[in-house]
Amino acid sequence: MKAQLLEIGNKAREAAEYMALLETLKKNEVLRQVAENLIKDHDILIKENAKDMENGRQNGMPEGLLDRLLLTEKRIEQMAEGLLQIADLDDPIGEILSMKKRPNGLRIGRKRVPLGVVGIIYEARPNVTADAFGLCFKTGNAVILKGGSDALYSNMAIVESIQRTLKECRVNENAISLITDTSRETATEFMKMNGYVDVLIPRGGAGLIRAVVTNATVPVIETGTGNCHIYVDEGADLDMAVDIIYNAKTQRIGVCNACESLVVHEKVKAELLPRLVSRLKEKNVELRADEASRSICDGMLPATEEDWGTEYLDYILSIKTVSDINEAIAHINRYNTGHSEAIITRDYDHAEQFLDEVDAAAVYVNASTRFTDGFEFGFGAEIGISTQKLHARGPMGLEALTSTKYIIYGNGQIRP
Amino acid sequence: MKAQLLEIGNKAREAAEYMALLETLKKNEVLRQVAENLIKDHDILIKENAKDMENGRQNGMPEGLLDRLLLTEKRIEQMAEGLLQIADLDDPIGEILSMKKRPNGLRIGRKRVPLGVVGIIYEARPNVTADAFGLCFKTGNAVILKGGSDALYSNMAIVESIQRTLKECRVNENAISLITDTSRETATEFMKMNGYVDVLIPRGGAGLIRAVVTNATVPVIETGTGNCHIYVDEGADLDMAVDIIYNAKTQRIGVCNACESLVVHEKVKAELLPRLVSRLKEKNVELRADEASRSICDGMLPATEEDWGTEYLDYILSIKTVSDINEAIAHINRYNTGHSEAIITRDYDHAEQFLDEVDAAAVYVNASTRFTDGFEFGFGAEIGISTQKLHARGPMGLEALTSTKYIIYGNGQIRP
Repeated sequence: MKAQLLEIGNKAREAAEYMALLETLKKNEVLRQVAENLIKDHDILIKENAKDMENGRQNGMPEGLLDRLLLTEKRIEQMAEGLLQIADLDDPIGEILSMKKRPNGLRIGRKRVPLGVVGIIYEARPNVTADAFGLCFKTGNAVILKGGSDALYSNMAIVESIQRTLKECRVNENAISLITDTSRETATEFMKMNGYVDVLIPRGGAGLIRAVVTNATVPVIETGTGNCHIYVDEGADLDMAVDIIYNAKTQRIGVCNACESLVVHEKVKAELLPRLVSRLKEKNVELRADEASRSICDGMLPATEEDWGTEYLDYILSIKTVSDINEAIAHINRYNTGHSEAIITRDYDHAEQFLDEVDAAAVYVNASTRFTDGFEFGFGAEIGISTQKLHARGPMGLEALTSTKYIIYGNGQIRP
Repeated sequence: MKAQLLEIGNKAREAAEYMALLETLKKNEVLRQVAENLIKDHDILIKENAKDMENGRQNGMPEGLLDRLLLTEKRIEQMAEGLLQIADLDDPIGEILSMKKRPNGLRIGRKRVPLGVVGIIYEARPNVTADAFGLCFKTGNAVILKGGSDALYSNMAIVESIQRTLKECRVNENAISLITDTSRETATEFMKMNGYVDVLIPRGGAGLIRAVVTNATVPVIETGTGNCHIYVDEGADLDMAVDIIYNAKTQRIGVCNACESLVVHEKVKAELLPRLVSRLKEKNVELRADEASRSICDGMLPATEEDWGTEYLDYILSIKTVSDINEAIAHINRYNTGHSEAIITRDYDHAEQFLDEVDAAAVYVNASTRFTDGFEFGFGAEIGISTQKLHARGPMGLEALTSTKYIIYGNGQIRP
């Protein structure tokens, strides 16, 4: 292993032992101080960020990515605000989830503990740096960050500010570390640091997530690309359907819980589609539809097989006609990414069937898929949205960053 | 991917969809019928097992492994008994873990669902075949088994019997499948069947587990090697200590929760060690100790650095002297495998400190480590003991084979 990784790994391991025992009040005090100091340090953060922005422009980074990379005074305040919110959340560590007495007198309890060392691999979004630190710190974990090379100066400045605050607060500064070697080789080695890193969470696009899943030997929590569908059932309230589709498609397009595909019952298509086309025109949404839909009204391009499996993250919506709910569910289970799926219906049995049979982290009846989010679910913060089935599924709040241990109180029991 | 794997993968995926919706009563009925038919089929099972036994003997398989491979009428009855016990357990699938109403009126619930397709990789223990099937079937999962080549005939006979019963019961027979191609290449491909297999659980020795963790891209639940310690604190009840150490070391030696290492406070060593040496002599336990212990009494070999990290699975115990509980905890956290650790103490603070600071799946005060086991913990059955921190930690009962999904009931909510 490369020297930098080995050093970071060893220090993080040690910091994790320290963090696991840190009192809640101290953790909250530190989080508030980190927030305050990030705001104080805004000049240096913005100055360092300008170097990344300049490099980005020279390398022809697209406008959307440049915008995500940009730090402003307001955005730094938002980062700090996020940390204050995390400080206000209940600390899940130490909670006793159950305690039972066995016939032999052993009392067996289950207690919530930190995961240990959490590795986060992400792209050029400097806000993730502070965010991931806050969530891991609150849950008593040490965090090792591997951000995109495009945000290196910004990330170094943020981590430097946080580490300085940790030192001021007399807390182990290795509770956060940043891998500054941005080579691909180092990234791959980071994914194989079993014994040093307890879990890897990739945050970013489909390519990044695939690379982590393929290369990692450390356990990964796969977070989410979302090819989300809305199915409009026979007899559905079509005003509600149009409002929900419009919201789920256009309220924010670049997010994983946006609707990418409409599945429509053939008996409602004639009434629904013209109204929907006219509503979506407000935002110039491009529609890619199967033949059955295109025969209803103008303004739709033909959809290809590829469209059914595509997460557009853009003002584009695919449309598929089906002859009943079973066909709708089969289509969705074939093409979805296990994120968020919705049915618009008035039918009790169909609502329950959809909730039972659609295989996804979040399944909705008569609501927009855009609610799949830690804040909207009431968790107060999120580290990502898991689209896998192990450990955590759906929006991951603080609890997703914890494990449990069994604690057993005996008075001399031996096994017969 | 090899043709056999692809076919098994596709059929298992389909069976998983079917299994997820199978009623509890039907699952229980099928489990009871499988149990009955395995007993009826004992002649053919024993005949096929004899081929494996014969091959094993010719290949020089050690006696201990031959014993694990052997099927007898009584062992087949035990297999069947295990399935009947699983039929009697509560079905965890469909349980609503929580249901909350959000300020916007959305009702967000969390429901227990199957994982999907579970892959089990194991060695030459045919009882795992029926056992893993029973646990996966009860939890609505399809299972793909990859057993050791040494048990191929036994496994084929067991799986054939189970599939025949599934057909008789008019249940999708692909709820269980066996990979009969025993090449290493196929094993490695099996570990990379993302999209077909939702989780891999290796059951076997350290080498098997390491191979799976290293090669798999499918999420793995790491199960357990156990380098388990017992620490005898200053002022401990030494009668209790001797009884517990004797039990944890010798009650069954080949298991992962057996004690492999004794850590002893220097102030009790003079009184404890002579009594312990004489007690462990009953079972001819070999002792490998540091100098400080060896100076107390005869009959101990010198321990090397390697001993501290070794899971003997044999009548051997290493002994390390420490000067206080902090040194004991540091030693244990350095060398343990995250399985089961115990302290023998009368001191309240030391008991709590040990429970807090020792990083393992199960941490005991004044009891034998041999209790770490699904049956002893009251889960009724277990698929293994997880020594990792994600998803499941410690003995894994039925719940470890489940995931959750969020179900959301709305009435037209859109995100502002």
